[in-house]
Amino acid sequence: MSDTKFDVVGIGNAIVDVLAHAEDAFLEEHGLAKGAMTIIDAETAEKIYGLMGSGVEVSGGSAANTIAGIASLGGAGAFIGKVCKDQLGDVFTHDIRAVGVSFETKADENGVPTARCLICVTPDAERTMQTFLGACVDLGPEDVDDQVVGASKVLYLEGYLWDPPRAKEAFIKAAKIAAEAGRQVALSLSDPFCVDRHREEFLDLVNNHVNILFANEDEIKSLYQVDDFDAALQYVRGHCDIAALTRSSQGSVVVAGEEVHVIDAEKIDKVVDTTGAGDSYAAGFLYGLTQGRELATCGHIGGILAAEIISHYGARAENDLKAVLAEKMK
Amino acid sequence: MSDTKFDVVGIGNAIVDVLAHAEDAFLEEHGLAKGAMTIIDAETAEKIYGLMGSGVEVSGGSAANTIAGIASLGGAGAFIGKVCKDQLGDVFTHDIRAVGVSFETKADENGVPTARCLICVTPDAERTMQTFLGACVDLGPEDVDDQVVGASKVLYLEGYLWDPPRAKEAFIKAAKIAAEAGRQVALSLSDPFCVDRHREEFLDLVNNHVNILFANEDEIKSLYQVDDFDAALQYVRGHCDIAALTRSSQGSVVVAGEEVHVIDAEKIDKVVDTTGAGDSYAAGFLYGLTQGRELATCGHIGGILAAEIISHYGARAENDLKAVLAEKMK
Repeated sequence: MSDTKFDVVGIGNAIVDVLAHAEDAFLEEHGLAKGAMTIIDAETAEKIYGLMGSGVEVSGGSAANTIAGIASLGGAGAFIGKVCKDQLGDVFTHDIRAVGVSFETKADENGVPTARCLICVTPDAERTMQTFLGACVDLGPEDVDDQVVGASKVLYLEGYLWDPPRAKEAFIKAAKIAAEAGRQVALSLSDPFCVDRHREEFLDLVNNHVNILFANEDEIKSLYQVDDFDAALQYVRGHCDIAALTRSSQGSVVVAGEEVHVIDAEKIDKVVDTTGAGDSYAAGFLYGLTQGRELATCGHIGGILAAEIISHYGARAENDLKAVLAEKMK
Repeated sequence: MSDTKFDVVGIGNAIVDVLAHAEDAFLEEHGLAKGAMTIIDAETAEKIYGLMGSGVEVSGGSAANTIAGIASLGGAGAFIGKVCKDQLGDVFTHDIRAVGVSFETKADENGVPTARCLICVTPDAERTMQTFLGACVDLGPEDVDDQVVGASKVLYLEGYLWDPPRAKEAFIKAAKIAAEAGRQVALSLSDPFCVDRHREEFLDLVNNHVNILFANEDEIKSLYQVDDFDAALQYVRGHCDIAALTRSSQGSVVVAGEEVHVIDAEKIDKVVDTTGAGDSYAAGFLYGLTQGRELATCGHIGGILAAEIISHYGARAENDLKAVLAEKMK
C-alpha cells in the first residue's frame, strides 16, 4: 500500500445551511416532516424561505461537516462536492478551506445556484431540513480526483449522495479506486427516509463495498426493516467490518465481528440544536480510527464531538475541537 | 401632527455580517484595529476573508439591527438601505422582513455586491469589524420615501451613514421631512473612529437637527474631544433633547435637560460577543420611548436588550425578545 496524503476524503453534497427557529405549529401548518430531510425544488425553497423567520447562514452538508470536524481535530481531510460560482459557493469554499480541508472540485458556472438546506429548529432542539440541491446535481464521476482518493486512508460517503442523479456514479468510481489502493470505504446512511428511498442499493453497498458503516437507530432499523435495535445490530454484524450505531442520549454501539462496545453518551447541560450530531460523531470516530486508536476510544471521541455540536446552534464547531477533546480525554 | 404608521424608520447601511472567532495575535499580524469599524475595499475584503477562519453569516447593519430589534419587541418598524440583487441581498431582505420590518428600498442591479462586514470575535468577546460597503454607496436621497418618513414617530440614523458619499444627502432629505411632520430625529454616533472622521458634521447635526442622541463613552468623549465622561455629559446636556450614553458594564446614563438617570447594567453570566450591543440598547430605548414610557424605563429596556444580545454570537436576537422583556420587567 502506497503512502497516504489524507486521513479521510469525503464525497458529499456541498450545502450552505440556513437555520431559523420555528414552532412545531409552523411545521404542521406547512406540512414539513419533522426531524427528516426532504428534497425540494427551487420554487418550494423560495416559498418556504419566505415563510421562515430570520436566519443564520452556516456552511453545512453531511460529509462536509464530518471532514471539517476531522480537520479541526488536526486530521488531514479532503472534500469532493459541487458548488456554483456564487456568493454562497464562496462561503462554502472559504469555510471548508479555512479549517484546513483540501477542496478543489471545480465550481459550476451554469447559473444553478449553490445548494441550501432550510433548517427549522424547534424548541425541543430537533431540526427539520428542506434541501434544495442546486449545483449538487452536477456532481459526477469526472469530479472524482483519482490521486486524492487513492492517497486517503478512508473514503467517506454520505447516503444523501443517492438523491442527485449522477453522484452515485462518482461514488462507484471512487469506491473502485479506494479498493484498488487498499483503502477503507465508509458510508453514513444519513436519514431513515433516505434509506427508504434507496434501500436495495444501500443493502448492496453494505454487503459488497462498505468497510465502515455509520447509522443511527432509525436508519439501521429502516435498512433491515426491523422494529428492534438489537435485531438490526445482529444483521449488521455479519455484513460489514465495522458498524458504529448512534442512539442519541443512549450513546452508541460499535460492532466489528466479535468485538462489541456499548458507549454511554457524554453528559451535557442543554441540547440547543441537534443539527450535525451524526456528522460530528463520524468525524470523531474516523479521526480516532485513522490515528490508530481502539474502536471503543473511536466511539468515545465520536460521542464527545457530537455532544459539543448539539450544545450550540449550527452543524460546525464553534469551539476549538482539539482543546475540547484534550479536556475530555484527560 | 398626522397619524403615524411606524414607530421608528431607520436609515442605514444594509450589511450582512460574516462572524468568525480570531485570536488577538491575528488582529496584530494583519494590522486590524481592535474594537473599531474600518472601511475596506473589495480587494482587501477578499484578502481578509481568505485569512479568516470558518464563519457564520447573519444579517447586520447598525440601524438595521436596531429596527429589527424594535420589530421583534412588537414595535412597528421600517428600514431604508441599499442591497444588491444577489444572494446576500436576498438574505438581508428576507431576515429584516421576517421580523416584520417594512423594507422596500429598491435593490441595485449594477453588479456591485451587497455590503458585508467581516467581524473577528476575540476570546474577550470584543468584535473588530472590517466593512466592505458594496451596494451601500448607491444609497441616495431618491431612496428616501417621504410617506414612510413622514408617518414614523422617530427617524433613526446611524453615524456610519457618513462613510458612503451620498447617504448624507438621504439623511438631510429625511431629516427635513421629519421636522416638517413634527417627528423626532435620533442619531447613533456608531464608532469613535467614525466620529473622528466626521466630527464637525456630527457636532452640527447634534446642535441643529438631532432630538435623541445615542453614543457610547468613547464616542461622546471623541465628539467633544474630552478625556472625561462627566465632561462630555455636561456638554451634551445643553445640545440635544435626550442623550442616552452607554458605558458597557457600567450601564447607561440618560439625560434630558434637568432630568438625569444613571442605570445599572443587567447582570449576565458570560459575555460571548459584543457585536450589536449598542444597536440593541437603542432598539430597547426607542421601543420604550415610542410606547410612551418614562426615560428611566427606556434606559432599562435598552440595557435588557443589550444584555440579551451580548450573551450569544451575532448582532440579531436569537430568543423571543417579547418574552425576554416580559420576564425581566415583571
